[in-house]
Amino acid sequence: MSVDFFESNREVLDQALAAAASRGYWSPFPESPSPRIYGETAAQDGQAAFEALRGKDFPLDQPGAAGTVAGERSPFGFDLDIRYPKVAADVLVRQAEAALESWREAGPRAWVGVSLEILKRLNRRSFEIAHAVQHTTGQGFMMAFQAGGPHAQDRGLEAVAYAWQEMSRIPEVAEWEKPQGKHEPLRMRKRFTLVPRGVALVIGVSTFPTWNGYPGLFASLATGNPVIVKPHPAAILPLAITVQVAREVLAEGGFDPNVVQLAAHAADDDTAQRLAMDPAVRIIDFTGSSPNGSWLETNARHAQVYTEKAGVNQVIIDSVEDIKGVARNLAFSFSLYSGQMCTAPQNVYVPRDGIRTAEGRLTFDEVAQALAQAVERTMSDPAKAVELTGAIQNEATARRIDDARGLGLPVLCDSRALEHPQYPDARVRTPLLLKADAGDARIGQEWFGPIVFIVATDSTDHSIELARDTAAAHGALTLSGYTTDEAVGTRMRRAAERAGVSLSLNLTGGVFVNQTAAFSDFHGTGANPAANAALSDSAFVANRFRVVQTRWHA
Amino acid sequence: MSVDFFESNREVLDQALAAAASRGYWSPFPESPSPRIYGETAAQDGQAAFEALRGKDFPLDQPGAAGTVAGERSPFGFDLDIRYPKVAADVLVRQAEAALESWREAGPRAWVGVSLEILKRLNRRSFEIAHAVQHTTGQGFMMAFQAGGPHAQDRGLEAVAYAWQEMSRIPEVAEWEKPQGKHEPLRMRKRFTLVPRGVALVIGVSTFPTWNGYPGLFASLATGNPVIVKPHPAAILPLAITVQVAREVLAEGGFDPNVVQLAAHAADDDTAQRLAMDPAVRIIDFTGSSPNGSWLETNARHAQVYTEKAGVNQVIIDSVEDIKGVARNLAFSFSLYSGQMCTAPQNVYVPRDGIRTAEGRLTFDEVAQALAQAVERTMSDPAKAVELTGAIQNEATARRIDDARGLGLPVLCDSRALEHPQYPDARVRTPLLLKADAGDARIGQEWFGPIVFIVATDSTDHSIELARDTAAAHGALTLSGYTTDEAVGTRMRRAAERAGVSLSLNLTGGVFVNQTAAFSDFHGTGANPAANAALSDSAFVANRFRVVQTRWHA
Repeated sequence: MSVDFFESNREVLDQALAAAASRGYWSPFPESPSPRIYGETAAQDGQAAFEALRGKDFPLDQPGAAGTVAGERSPFGFDLDIRYPKVAADVLVRQAEAALESWREAGPRAWVGVSLEILKRLNRRSFEIAHAVQHTTGQGFMMAFQAGGPHAQDRGLEAVAYAWQEMSRIPEVAEWEKPQGKHEPLRMRKRFTLVPRGVALVIGVSTFPTWNGYPGLFASLATGNPVIVKPHPAAILPLAITVQVAREVLAEGGFDPNVVQLAAHAADDDTAQRLAMDPAVRIIDFTGSSPNGSWLETNARHAQVYTEKAGVNQVIIDSVEDIKGVARNLAFSFSLYSGQMCTAPQNVYVPRDGIRTAEGRLTFDEVAQALAQAVERTMSDPAKAVELTGAIQNEATARRIDDARGLGLPVLCDSRALEHPQYPDARVRTPLLLKADAGDARIGQEWFGPIVFIVATDSTDHSIELARDTAAAHGALTLSGYTTDEAVGTRMRRAAERAGVSLSLNLTGGVFVNQTAAFSDFHGTGANPAANAALSDSAFVANRFRVVQTRWHA
Repeated sequence: MSVDFFESNREVLDQALAAAASRGYWSPFPESPSPRIYGETAAQDGQAAFEALRGKDFPLDQPGAAGTVAGERSPFGFDLDIRYPKVAADVLVRQAEAALESWREAGPRAWVGVSLEILKRLNRRSFEIAHAVQHTTGQGFMMAFQAGGPHAQDRGLEAVAYAWQEMSRIPEVAEWEKPQGKHEPLRMRKRFTLVPRGVALVIGVSTFPTWNGYPGLFASLATGNPVIVKPHPAAILPLAITVQVAREVLAEGGFDPNVVQLAAHAADDDTAQRLAMDPAVRIIDFTGSSPNGSWLETNARHAQVYTEKAGVNQVIIDSVEDIKGVARNLAFSFSLYSGQMCTAPQNVYVPRDGIRTAEGRLTFDEVAQALAQAVERTMSDPAKAVELTGAIQNEATARRIDDARGLGLPVLCDSRALEHPQYPDARVRTPLLLKADAGDARIGQEWFGPIVFIVATDSTDHSIELARDTAAAHGALTLSGYTTDEAVGTRMRRAAERAGVSLSLNLTGGVFVNQTAAFSDFHGTGANPAANAALSDSAFVANRFRVVQTRWHA
C-alpha cells in the first residue's frame, strides 16, 4: 500500500502485545476527556459534530443504497432524525465478496495496519462518538465517552493484537530438509498463505454498540475478512461513524472501502436473518438476547458464530470488614447505567442468619437495609444520580421494572423516576431492590435493567452452590464475592472456575464488578451459557483465518 | 506430582515449539525401524508382544467393565481374537467426570508433562504398535510402523506443543495498577486459572487409528480434559495400547488413570452416539465418513466438534519436464495403502488436447498411458507391491472397486488381486485407473480406495477451475499440480487458496502428495468441507481450555 499503516502504528501494536502478556494496566487511548489530552476545543467540536449530523442524511459514501433508514430516538427524549443509506442484505454481501478479492491479497500487515489506523482515528473522534453513544444507548456522558470511546478502542486494539500474534507465528516461507542417510536430503520449500474465512458480519447491540462491536469487527478485519456491520436499529449512529472512519482509512490506503460496510435497517425487518443466513457469510459476531444468539448458533451453521448473550450475575456476601464500603460499591454497580450492562449484578446472596463483620454480626435484614440505604444515598442528588444511571434505553426495560415490582416480593428500595435537569423527557429510573428467597425460581432468569434481588440463603455454602449452579445453567458474565475468610474465598474461586465465570473478591473501592479492563481482564469466559467466547483471547481470533500452504522441491 | 514429567520432557517440548515456529524438518521420534535406533531386539520384542496379545483378554485395568468386546480381524486374513473390557457409555462418562475433578486441579504443567511422557513411552512401543496398526488397518508393515508409530507420535507432540504455547501465554498472576492522577493508584491482583472444557471424546477411524487419533487425544489431554478414546470396532488394538500406556503414566504420576479411558464397543451398536450426545462431553474429535461427521456437527451442539471427513483429492497436470518422474511419483501415491488415505489423489486432470513436456507434446492418451504403465510397473513384483499397497481394510472398499469398474468408463489399468507371499488370505488389490470426462458428475464424489480417474478437461484453466470448485463444494485434503510455467503455478496456488486446500507442486521425487510432515505441513486447512480443523494449529487447541480469573484489591 502507498501508506504503510502497519509501520506507523507498529509501536502501539508491540505495546499492546506486551500488555496482554503481562496483563498489567495499559491503554494507549486516554479515558479522561480532559482538554489537556484531547485538545482545548475537542469537547465542543465533538458536540458540534454530533449536532451537525442530526436531521440530515448521514455522510456515508456506500454504493448500492436504495432509500434511507432512520428512526433513532435518544433515551434522553428527542429524535435524532438521521437518515442512513439502506442497502439490501444480498447487495451488501455481494459487495463484501467483491471486496474480499483484493483485501485477501493485501495480506496480514495491511489488514493489521489498516485496523490500527482506524482505531487511532476513532480515538480522535471520541467526543463525537460519546454523544452518539449517549443518545442511542442512554448512557450518561462520562460513561458514553469512556466505554463507548477509549475503552471500546482498547478492546478493538486487543483483538488486533491477538490476531497479529497468531498470524505472525506462521512463517511466510520455510525450508524443509529431511536427511536421507547416505543419500541427498529431501529439500522442500514451502509457502504459507494466511487466508481469510470470508465475509464477516457484526451484529451490534443497543446498549454498547462500540464496546461490544469492536472486538468482533477488528478481529475479523485484522484477519483479512471484509466486515458488514449491522447495528441495532436503535443504536446506528456510533457504528455508522465507525464505518465512516473505516472506509476513509481503507480508501486512503488504496483499498476497496467496501471491506467495511454499514447495514442500517429498520426495526423488526429481517435484515439480520438474511445477512446471517447468506452462505457467503462465514463469521458472525453477535451481542444481544439469548433467543437471538441461540438462533444464530443453531441456524448459521455455515459460519463461525461468536455470541455474547444474557446471564444472571450474582454476588455472594459471606463476611465483610465494613458493610458500608461493600454497600457503596454495590450500590454503584446497581445504579451504573441503570443495570443495563451484561455484567451488572442482579442476585445478592446473604445467609438468612446474617453475616460476620469486623464490628459484630449483622442480620440478613440489616445487610439488605444497608444495601438499600446505599442505593438511596447514591440516588439522593438527582443531578449527580442521572449522570450515573443515564437513561433507560428502551421501554421494555422500563416495563420490566414494573413486572419485577409485580412479583409480590418485599420492596427494599423502590425504583423512582428521576427528573433529568438537562433533558426533561429522559427516561430515568433508580434501582429497584427486592427481597427474595433462594428457593424462588423467578430469580434464576435475567431481569435486565435496574432490578436487584437480595436473596436469603441457608448458608454461605448454599450461596456458593446456588451461584455456581445458576451460572452454569443460565450463564453469567460476572460473579462477586465478599468474605474475610481465606478458605471461603478459595471455595468461591473453585465454584467460579467450575461454573466458568470470572470472580471479583471484596471490591470496596474504585473498581466495580461490572467493569473490565482490556489487556488485563477477560470479558466473559466462553465457558458458560452467557457467551461462547471471551473478549478477547487466542480462540477468539485463531479460527478467523486459515493457513493454506504450497510446497515444492527446492 | 511426585514425578515431574514436565521437567524431564521439557527439552523436547522446547524443540517442538522451535520446529513449529520455523516449520523446518524435525522429529524426536525416528521413523527408521533400525535396530541401531530402537535396539537390537526391538523388532522381535515388538512382534512377540503383539503375538502375546492375541487370543486373550487385553490387559487393561479399567473399572466399570461388564463383559468384553472382540471381533477384530486382520485385513491380512486372520482373527486377532483379543477381548477388551466393555464399559457402558454412561459409566465411562461418569468415570471421566470424576477424574476431571482431580485432573483439572493438577494444572497445565502436569497436563503437558503427562502427555509428553505418554508419547515418549508410546515411541518405545512403536514395533508392537506397528503390528497392531498393520493387522487392524491393513497397512504394510513399514507404513504401519512409520505412520502408526513415530509420525503419529509427532502429530501428538505437535498438539501438545501448541497447547502449551497457548496456555503458557496466560500468566498465573498479574499485578494491575491504574494511575488515578493525584490520588493513589488503583491496585488489583489477579489470578488466571486455566480450566478444561470438560470430558473429551476421541472417535477413531479404522485406517489411521493413531495418526488421526493422537492430535485430538493429546490436544484435549494437555489442556486438562479427561479423554474417552472410542476406537473404530475394527481397529481397537492400537488405541487400546495407547490407553494402556496413558493409564500407566497417569498412575505413576499419582493421577486418576480414568483421565484416559477406552470405549471399546461392537460394530453397529450406538456407543458413539450415546457418548457424543452425553451433555457432559464437551469436546469431540472425529475422523471418519462425511455423514457421521456432519451428524456430529449438527447434533452434538453441547460440544466443540473437530471433524475430519471425506473429500475429493485432485491432481492438475499442465506441463512437465519428464512425464516418467511424474508418473512414478503419482503411481506411488495411487498405490500407497491402496488409496485408503484421506489424502490420496483420486481425480487427475489432463487437458484433452494434451500437455507440453521438455521432449515435446504428449496427447491426453499418452499421459494416461504413462500413468497406467507406471502403476503396472510399481505393481509388477507382487512381493514388493504388497508392502506398498498393504491390504484392503474392509469389504466395502473392495466392493467399491467393482462399483467403479461398473461405471462403464474406459479402463486404463485394471485392479487385480495380488497374492501376498506371507499372508495368503490377505485382501490385496492393485489400483484401478479409469478414463473419464470432466463433465461426468460421478467423479465429483469420493471413491475411497485404489480408484483413480484420469479426467479429460478443456484446458489447464478448466482443470484449475474444476479442482477449485470441487474442493470448495465437496472438500479436499490435498491438491497436486504439475507445471513448468510459473504463471500457471501461481494460478494453481490462488485457486488452492480460494478452495482452502494445500497444494503440492511438481512432486517427482521422494515426497508424495498424500504425506505430510508434522511441525511443518498442516494436515487439512479447516477451510473446506473435508475438515473443520487443521492438524494442528492454534485454533485446534485454543478453545479446549478457558481462562477464569479472580481479582481482588492488592
